[in-house]
Amino acid sequence: MRSGKLVIAQGGGPTAVINQSLVGAVLEARRFPQIERVYGALHGVRGIVNEDFVDLSAESRTDLEAIAATPSAALGSTRDKPDLGYCRNIFASLKAHRASWFLYVGGNDTANTVRIVSEEAAKEGYELRCIHIPKTIDNDLLENDHTPGFPSAARFVVQAFMGADLDNRALPGVYVGVVMGRDSGFLTAASAAARTSEGDGPHLIYLPERIFDGARFLSEVKSVHDRLGRCVIAVSEGIRDTDGTPLSVRFAENVVKDAHGNIQLSGTGTLADLLCDEIRSALGIKRVRGDTFGYLQRSFVGCASDVDRREAREVGVFAVRQAIQAGRDGSVAIRRTGDYAVDYALVDLVNVGGKTRVMADDFIAPSGSDVTPAFEKYLRPLLGSDLPQPARLRGGAIAKVLKR
Amino acid sequence: MRSGKLVIAQGGGPTAVINQSLVGAVLEARRFPQIERVYGALHGVRGIVNEDFVDLSAESRTDLEAIAATPSAALGSTRDKPDLGYCRNIFASLKAHRASWFLYVGGNDTANTVRIVSEEAAKEGYELRCIHIPKTIDNDLLENDHTPGFPSAARFVVQAFMGADLDNRALPGVYVGVVMGRDSGFLTAASAAARTSEGDGPHLIYLPERIFDGARFLSEVKSVHDRLGRCVIAVSEGIRDTDGTPLSVRFAENVVKDAHGNIQLSGTGTLADLLCDEIRSALGIKRVRGDTFGYLQRSFVGCASDVDRREAREVGVFAVRQAIQAGRDGSVAIRRTGDYAVDYALVDLVNVGGKTRVMADDFIAPSGSDVTPAFEKYLRPLLGSDLPQPARLRGGAIAKVLKR
Repeated sequence: MRSGKLVIAQGGGPTAVINQSLVGAVLEARRFPQIERVYGALHGVRGIVNEDFVDLSAESRTDLEAIAATPSAALGSTRDKPDLGYCRNIFASLKAHRASWFLYVGGNDTANTVRIVSEEAAKEGYELRCIHIPKTIDNDLLENDHTPGFPSAARFVVQAFMGADLDNRALPGVYVGVVMGRDSGFLTAASAAARTSEGDGPHLIYLPERIFDGARFLSEVKSVHDRLGRCVIAVSEGIRDTDGTPLSVRFAENVVKDAHGNIQLSGTGTLADLLCDEIRSALGIKRVRGDTFGYLQRSFVGCASDVDRREAREVGVFAVRQAIQAGRDGSVAIRRTGDYAVDYALVDLVNVGGKTRVMADDFIAPSGSDVTPAFEKYLRPLLGSDLPQPARLRGGAIAKVLKR
Repeated sequence: MRSGKLVIAQGGGPTAVINQSLVGAVLEARRFPQIERVYGALHGVRGIVNEDFVDLSAESRTDLEAIAATPSAALGSTRDKPDLGYCRNIFASLKAHRASWFLYVGGNDTANTVRIVSEEAAKEGYELRCIHIPKTIDNDLLENDHTPGFPSAARFVVQAFMGADLDNRALPGVYVGVVMGRDSGFLTAASAAARTSEGDGPHLIYLPERIFDGARFLSEVKSVHDRLGRCVIAVSEGIRDTDGTPLSVRFAENVVKDAHGNIQLSGTGTLADLLCDEIRSALGIKRVRGDTFGYLQRSFVGCASDVDRREAREVGVFAVRQAIQAGRDGSVAIRRTGDYAVDYALVDLVNVGGKTRVMADDFIAPSGSDVTPAFEKYLRPLLGSDLPQPARLRGGAIAKVLKR
C-alpha cells in the first residue's frame, strides 16, 4: 500500500466556500492511516516550490470547522502558472517531503496546472496521485453542472440586485451593476433571480456569450425607461463588441494582465462608468448610477448558500476518497441528478484544465438581453434556503381631491 | 382634541431599516382614535403635492411586518427640496385631505424640509404637527448619538472589509475600498471593526474630516506594503484636498448635482480607479485593486443590524407619540445611555435640518489615517449580534528540507 504525505493547496480567486473543500479534504484524509501527515502549501504551487508548508494534521477539528465557515483561501492562493522548470521544482519539493498525494483546489487554470504536474510526474516516474478539486465563482468549468463558489457568489449578486432594484424603485433612474465572470455569463445571469414580482429588475441582462451592440443597448434601456420610468441593468464585466474586444479593455487606459495572460477586468469601475456616461449623454437621462460589484461578490463575509457550503465540503471529501481508491489522476466534477440532488465524478484533467464553459444557448433569451426560464430553474436550488423575500405595500390609492 | 389624518413620507437615500420606522409609525398611529386614517405619500413631498397617497390604515399587520424587514423606502423617496411655492402646494394638498400630522423620515436635507414646512404651516395658521424621523447611513445628524440606517450600513462595510482583507491575504497586493458618507467619515471609519486579529486590514483609513495629502497617502501605503507585503485601505468618497475640493470631483469629467446642490460622489468608480492608478505608477506595485461599494452598502438585502432594526422601529413609534402628546414640532433624536442602551428625545428641527455632524477629533487617530479605540468602542454595540468572526489556520510550519 502506498503511503506518504498528502499535500493540499488552493489556487486562483478565493470564494466564500473554498475553505469547506479544504476542511472536507483534511478531515477525510486524517481517517486514512496510509496518509502519514496532511500538509497545506501556502499560496498554492508557489508554497510547494518554496517549501512553505503547514501541518494540517495538527489543527483541531474545532479550528478547522471555524475555518470552513470563513470565506477566502485560508492557505493563501496564487496566480502562478507552472512551466516545465517550475514543475521540476514542485517535484523536488514534494519528493523531499515524501508526498504521495497532491490535491489542488481551483478553477480551470488550476486544473491545467494539476494536469501539467500530473503529466510531468508520470514522465519522471514519480508516484504522485494528483486530484483537482473544482472551485470558481465564474461557474465556467466543463464537465460540471455547476462549481463550488458559484452558488454563494450568485446569492450575493441576487441579494445585491434585490436591494438595487428596491433602491431604484424608491429613487427612480437607471442603475447599472457590473458583475464578474470573465468569458462566462452565469454570475451576471444569476441577477435574474432577484426578480420576485411584476416590474422587478434587472430589466436587462447583458452576457459575454452575446455580442454587445452599443446602439441596441441604448435603445433597449430607453424602451424600459420609457415604460417604467426606471431601468436596472446587469452587465457582465466580460461583454465584448463585434471584434471580440472586451469593452472594459477598449476603453481602459492601462491594461493589466496576470501570469495566465488573463486581462484584469475586475478591480476597476471603468466599464460601469463608461456605460453610465453613454446612457446619460445619448438618452438624456439625468439619474444614472453604476456599481461595479468587484471583489465584494467573491469575498463578502456572511452571504454563503447552504447548498454551496455542503457541496464544497463534499467535493473535498470525494477528492480524498478518489485519491486513495481511484487509481488514476483526475478532476472532481459535480453532476446534477433529479431536482435537486447531486453526485460526484472523477473526470479527466484534460477535459477541464484550461477550458472554459459558457452559457448554453437555451439559457439565454432570444433577445440576447435576458435569461430563459430554463436558466432560472437551473439556478434556483443552488441559491440555498432562506433567500430573502422583499415585500411591497399593496397600496390602496387615495382618490385625488384637488382640481388641477 | 385635534383629529384628522396622519401623512407619512420617506425622503433621501434609502436604508436597510427605513421601513422599520415607517411600520413603527403606522402601527402606533393606528392605536390613536383621533388619527382617522394613515396616509403614505409616494416619493416624499412630491407625492404630497401630486396627491399620490396610499391608505396605510388598510395594510394588514402581516404585510407591514414583511415590509419592515425589507430594505429601501417602501413609499418611494425623493431628492426634491421644497421652496416656498412648493410648500404652498404641500399645504394645499394636506389641507384638502384634512391632514393634521405630518411625519417625514429622512436625513438632514429632509429635516430641513420638515422645518420649512413647519414654519410655513405656522405662518399660514394651518394646524399641522410636523415631526422629522431620523434616517441616514452617513450618521451625520447633529443631536443624535447615531442615526437609524448607519448601523446596518456599517455592518455591510465591516463584512465587506473582513472579506476583502481575507481575499487580500490570499492574493496579496493593495486593495482600496471606497465607502459612502459624503462629508462625514463614520461609515468609512466603521471598516475598523473588520479587524479581529494582528495584521488585519484595513491598515489605513482616510476620512473627509482630515485633508487628504496625496504624497503622504503614497508613503503610508508604501510603508504598510513594505512591512506586510500587502495593504488594505478604506477611503471615504468625500476625501478632499487642501483647498477643500473633493478628489472625486477634481478628477471627474462630468460633475452631476442633485436638487440639494449635493455633488454626486457615489455611483461612479472614478475615485477608486484614480487612487489605484496612483499607487501602481508611483509605487510600482503590480497587484492593485479598487472597489467602490456604491449602492450595495445602503441597499443590500440581508445585512441589517438587529440593534438598528429595533431602534429604527422605535423612532417611528416615538415620533407618533410625540406628534400626539408633545404639543410642538421637532426632530426625533437617539441618545445613548449607559453601555449599551438608548433613549429618544424630541429636539428642535433647526438643530438638525441642513446641518452636518462630522466625526469628533477623539474618534480620529493622530496619524489622520486611522480611528481611535474610543471610536471602536462607540461603534461595536451598533453592529448588532452575530457579527461573523473570520477564523485562521494556526499553521504549525513544517521545517524545510531542501538545500538552496
